[in-house]
Amino acid sequence: MADPEKVHAVRVGWGLVIHGGVGVLPPEQLTPAVDGAYRDALTESLSRGFETLSGGGSATDGVVEAIKVMEDSPLFNVGRGSNLTSDGLVSMDASIMEGGTLSAGAVAGVRDVRHPIRLARHVMDDCPHVLLAGEGAEAFAREMGMASHEPDFFFTQRRWDDLQAAKAREAQGEAKPNTVDAGDEEIRDRAGTVGAVALDREGLLVAGTSTGGSANKKWGRIGDSPIVAAGTYAGSHCGVSCTGWGEYFIRHAVAHDIQARMAYLGVTLKEATEQVVLGTLEDHRAGLGGVVAMDRQGYVEMCFNTRGMYRGWVDEVGRVRVAIF
Amino acid sequence: MADPEKVHAVRVGWGLVIHGGVGVLPPEQLTPAVDGAYRDALTESLSRGFETLSGGGSATDGVVEAIKVMEDSPLFNVGRGSNLTSDGLVSMDASIMEGGTLSAGAVAGVRDVRHPIRLARHVMDDCPHVLLAGEGAEAFAREMGMASHEPDFFFTQRRWDDLQAAKAREAQGEAKPNTVDAGDEEIRDRAGTVGAVALDREGLLVAGTSTGGSANKKWGRIGDSPIVAAGTYAGSHCGVSCTGWGEYFIRHAVAHDIQARMAYLGVTLKEATEQVVLGTLEDHRAGLGGVVAMDRQGYVEMCFNTRGMYRGWVDEVGRVRVAIF
Repeated sequence: MADPEKVHAVRVGWGLVIHGGVGVLPPEQLTPAVDGAYRDALTESLSRGFETLSGGGSATDGVVEAIKVMEDSPLFNVGRGSNLTSDGLVSMDASIMEGGTLSAGAVAGVRDVRHPIRLARHVMDDCPHVLLAGEGAEAFAREMGMASHEPDFFFTQRRWDDLQAAKAREAQGEAKPNTVDAGDEEIRDRAGTVGAVALDREGLLVAGTSTGGSANKKWGRIGDSPIVAAGTYAGSHCGVSCTGWGEYFIRHAVAHDIQARMAYLGVTLKEATEQVVLGTLEDHRAGLGGVVAMDRQGYVEMCFNTRGMYRGWVDEVGRVRVAIF
Repeated sequence: MADPEKVHAVRVGWGLVIHGGVGVLPPEQLTPAVDGAYRDALTESLSRGFETLSGGGSATDGVVEAIKVMEDSPLFNVGRGSNLTSDGLVSMDASIMEGGTLSAGAVAGVRDVRHPIRLARHVMDDCPHVLLAGEGAEAFAREMGMASHEPDFFFTQRRWDDLQAAKAREAQGEAKPNTVDAGDEEIRDRAGTVGAVALDREGLLVAGTSTGGSANKKWGRIGDSPIVAAGTYAGSHCGVSCTGWGEYFIRHAVAHDIQARMAYLGVTLKEATEQVVLGTLEDHRAGLGGVVAMDRQGYVEMCFNTRGMYRGWVDEVGRVRVAIF
């Protein structure tokens, strides 16, 4: 708590704030090499986003480019390296929203696209709908010229091992997906998500989120990441991207609630995020997770109620900060 | 506007308020016989809800029973008589939420269950997740002992004709699904949804919504009805069920926004619903639709910015009111 960035609001001007999920590895597994790999990946994502924005790209471009880096990295539960469902396949969700127009696009349960955030953007830009799911969303991806990738493309040994472990816990009756006694493994199984919020020089505020979903998920479960108002929102006052126990983020409409508190209570971004993440969600102990958020003045917030959250920001002069715990 | 029920808030005590969608037939098609059939169906739904509540059932029971009546009626775009997707099949969505605990359940893209609202309740009560989609949701229905029905069960000639008309408009380039120039047909194609909000004697406030979705829909489109915060919300201050152009209800998080305005601005249910339906949505002219809502004191609101909305309420002494325009 001595970290001044946790006490004082940080203003980046135009720039970008990202997260790579709250499902951080325990300290004993986060060796210096692994820790460095995560920080490098976060830095690469922020650098790509900064290059895009500084080169004249919009906040939408910045969010998509920053998230694509994490979708391509096997470190994060998204794109390549996504969690595996109970039948051993990936099932990815993503959403994106622009604050000015409230334009939004989202996809759920997609199995074959390399960059789900790009597909979500196509839904926003090229489709009358906001949310597409499953094979229908994949058919739309083909119409947009996006390639289909085989299951092997997304497979990683780490997520396969996670799935086997999750199935073993389930068989032993240890998985308590709806209780307050979530273990570290359960948090990691469920909370791997990436996201970005950007503000560009034109004042456009955009939020995006992408996820591989929870390990061992069944019954076509959809979490908060593709749900506008729950996992992602960009409105008149702020942009928000969430990571955490999706069911609680849906029930509390976390992303929209932060926007609503700023708009109706007149509180700052910092106050609104802390009220929701450290207040509302903490009061429901299983509401574990975090958010990154940005307001129209370029203030950023990275707030979580878990042990850590892969996260970082880049400001308008290219200064980068990344952190895990 | 001389209707006193539009000027003064109506208080029903414990009771139920329902809607059968804003996609009302044009006056020339709404013959006295058809008008009577809709009013009878609304009255039956309210009566079933009232019997459930007065017999000691919970608000959750009341919402489910009231909606089941409309799901069984071919008059409404839900359950039997649902709209047909571009491939000629039904694809139904539903959601339910309890205000006290924020428990919620929802299903999207379900093709074979008679009562999607019952399946949404099973998700809420018997599943760690909030939202299930497609074949996964149908598999969960089987685990809950719910029967699977063949496509023929849901088929109605009227919706088949609507689909052919929608396809013809699409072929002629007349369908402008994302513009402000929506014709009556487009509204009807998209806006058929039913919903209910109930308050029981214990003070439990519950909202539920069920829909057959939009006619000729493609790409696995999911509208607002199964989305907690968009089509349905029940929170500390009110319960809300929406009907209308789903994409706008998602972008504005309509159901949650009404709850948020009551909680943070301190306005009444009537003020909050009018701010959102007659303010926010009217400002975005394609945001056509309406809501029914109820607060913890038993006040009901039925607010819409379209020509009509099938709707009604029943109060704690069994008095029923239904209306269309």
